[in-house]
Amino acid sequence: MTQPTGPEATANLELNEAELPAGYRFAGVACGIKASGRADLSLLVSDQPVVAAGVFTTNQVVAAPVLLCKARTPSATVRAVVVNSGNANACTGKQGEADAQQMTQWVAEKLGIADDAVLVMSTGVIGHTLPMTKIEQGIAAAHQQLAASPDAFHLAADAILTTDKSRKVASRTVKIGKQSYHIAGMAKGAGMISPNMATMLATVITDAPLSPEDAQSLLATSADLSFNRVSVDGHTSTNDTLLLLAHASPKPLAEDDLQVFQNALTEMCIELAKQLPADGEGAKHVLQLTVSGAASDEDAAVIARTVAASPLVKTALTGGDPNWGRIVSAAGYAGPPISVPQTCLTILNTPVFTDGQPVAFDAAKLSEAMKAEPFVSVRLVVGSGPGQAKFWASDLTTDYVEFNSLYTT
Amino acid sequence: MTQPTGPEATANLELNEAELPAGYRFAGVACGIKASGRADLSLLVSDQPVVAAGVFTTNQVVAAPVLLCKARTPSATVRAVVVNSGNANACTGKQGEADAQQMTQWVAEKLGIADDAVLVMSTGVIGHTLPMTKIEQGIAAAHQQLAASPDAFHLAADAILTTDKSRKVASRTVKIGKQSYHIAGMAKGAGMISPNMATMLATVITDAPLSPEDAQSLLATSADLSFNRVSVDGHTSTNDTLLLLAHASPKPLAEDDLQVFQNALTEMCIELAKQLPADGEGAKHVLQLTVSGAASDEDAAVIARTVAASPLVKTALTGGDPNWGRIVSAAGYAGPPISVPQTCLTILNTPVFTDGQPVAFDAAKLSEAMKAEPFVSVRLVVGSGPGQAKFWASDLTTDYVEFNSLYTT
Repeated sequence: MTQPTGPEATANLELNEAELPAGYRFAGVACGIKASGRADLSLLVSDQPVVAAGVFTTNQVVAAPVLLCKARTPSATVRAVVVNSGNANACTGKQGEADAQQMTQWVAEKLGIADDAVLVMSTGVIGHTLPMTKIEQGIAAAHQQLAASPDAFHLAADAILTTDKSRKVASRTVKIGKQSYHIAGMAKGAGMISPNMATMLATVITDAPLSPEDAQSLLATSADLSFNRVSVDGHTSTNDTLLLLAHASPKPLAEDDLQVFQNALTEMCIELAKQLPADGEGAKHVLQLTVSGAASDEDAAVIARTVAASPLVKTALTGGDPNWGRIVSAAGYAGPPISVPQTCLTILNTPVFTDGQPVAFDAAKLSEAMKAEPFVSVRLVVGSGPGQAKFWASDLTTDYVEFNSLYTT
Repeated sequence: MTQPTGPEATANLELNEAELPAGYRFAGVACGIKASGRADLSLLVSDQPVVAAGVFTTNQVVAAPVLLCKARTPSATVRAVVVNSGNANACTGKQGEADAQQMTQWVAEKLGIADDAVLVMSTGVIGHTLPMTKIEQGIAAAHQQLAASPDAFHLAADAILTTDKSRKVASRTVKIGKQSYHIAGMAKGAGMISPNMATMLATVITDAPLSPEDAQSLLATSADLSFNRVSVDGHTSTNDTLLLLAHASPKPLAEDDLQVFQNALTEMCIELAKQLPADGEGAKHVLQLTVSGAASDEDAAVIARTVAASPLVKTALTGGDPNWGRIVSAAGYAGPPISVPQTCLTILNTPVFTDGQPVAFDAAKLSEAMKAEPFVSVRLVVGSGPGQAKFWASDLTTDYVEFNSLYTT
């Protein structure tokens, strides 16, 4: 993979041919859903039926494509994923459900397969029905352009973006026995929810052989440590969808091999997920937070999420302010028990609060370092328990407020 | 009471003599805790021992004066409350606890009463020990100036402010049988927590006779419907304190009379609490949210708190955007069950979402109305249950971000 990532990076990431799993083809086209004329329809096709697993939004207000994907995963017979951007097909009632089903039917007809071998995602404005004539044309055009190349993968990754400034892709190669397996992912999302109800969408593909049950379990575990540990504004979308496609095989990975694959999948998902807050609306910095010493990993995650959601912590990050009081007090109201006399905090490896007391440090120097660093590493110890968690969150800038207070309905 | 309130109001509210409960004297002085030279020490004294109840921050990181007040309430023998602003006496360890105790001792010596008849609050910067010499002089000066007048009440109310732009006071007179009782309150708070860890502090006084147990129960109930239903940034402070002082009597109010008093106390607390988000850091509008149709009042409150905390809802309010999608989707991820097909939303009495579907409305006209109205009334129905809740929250502006991203440590 080339190009660095981070809040300051504007160049697009690229994968090379050796990073792509075998057996998948890609396309991305513009079919006129977006008024801007940018790419808005993405198609991913596997040469053979593959295993598919999904993790979805926990919002009770759920878009039509999410309902469809939930019903069709886990599966061992999936062949394609179609994604449109520019319209979320959310709050669109029965018509929306029929349209999501129609999108999968058009793809199935082109490929000569069953409808239920196709999955669908949508992202963009809500409360409007899809422009189905454009989408039908887009599916036909994308089908014509399917290719297994990195260029085609990048076109597919670009066509799912909405308010994102940069493409979001990542990959891992994992050696299990004598065999090398490839994992590659694409994602979109610049807010957990963006001005017109954009969303987090991601698709991960691999040539590793997995059973549907294992694929589902692996994906849930990796999602919990990656996509569920990032935030821009903490607003859970109606459309969030993460899919994993894996090769079907009579001899899927098992036991120790599965654990090796799990680790690689989690690493790749974290690399992909971190790109969301790094490209967060208006973001200048990413808080890279590690909480340890909690009673359990779950408690540590709740504390990390609470600290990362505090507007006062986020604005301190914006201003390069090593404001330990805002961080420690946010941990104090998160809910899980903390031990104040054992609480310690370091910012960019500088201790600022130790054993429940503020300590002397060069605030001007640390502030300069925070301002210069796109990813600001903060370590918070809240006791002597075994629980720990990592979390990544964007800062809160005037650009975010301006962007989201524009009249958008 | 004179002068209107609201995000646009800058004039200070004033109570008149008839609104003040009998038996209390007040003072507010500048003793040099604040570098600005503004008033920073407030003293309130009752002529007789009074009943005192308190409601305190739920943060696990708790400032020294909160620990002291928790230990001394409820009580039937309180005589005074001393408050300093400019320094929160938080994260100051054993020295902080000794300093809080010393403040009450100095007041007790001046009045010739027991230490434990004095309560104390602090608000301002954290992690610094109090400038005790200045505070001793401030207590002496305030003691000299104690008076029962509205002017003295206003001086005491002004001396507890930090980043607040306006004084926060309210009153109610309640007739029970042939007797009229007075309730008057003062509060401070422009963020749940402000740049240097400011806080929500409030003192409510009444000449109604209450038992300590009833005073505690009444205050908890009223707090839950008022101070616990407002937010600026959702960050719970280390110092939040709400005190109620009431006349002690061998014949306290009971039964039906207590309920009448409860209603008046809640009304007054809501009037006082609404002044916090109206003066919220950078605030231009207040969201006045009513959630109904939930399974219980508790569920409705959770939904209201979640909607009011969403940065996307807050920025929509800033921009005058009738963005039903942000509000409905926030209700969808709040947690308590909602019925999407029964969900309805009105903004300033205009239906924008009915029975789970968007409805046509004049968006430009509604946007203009939202921009012109300091208190934007939003009603959200989430089902057919009996649960309901009201909530008040400030919007999120670039001024808030600029104010809180300044270097403050």
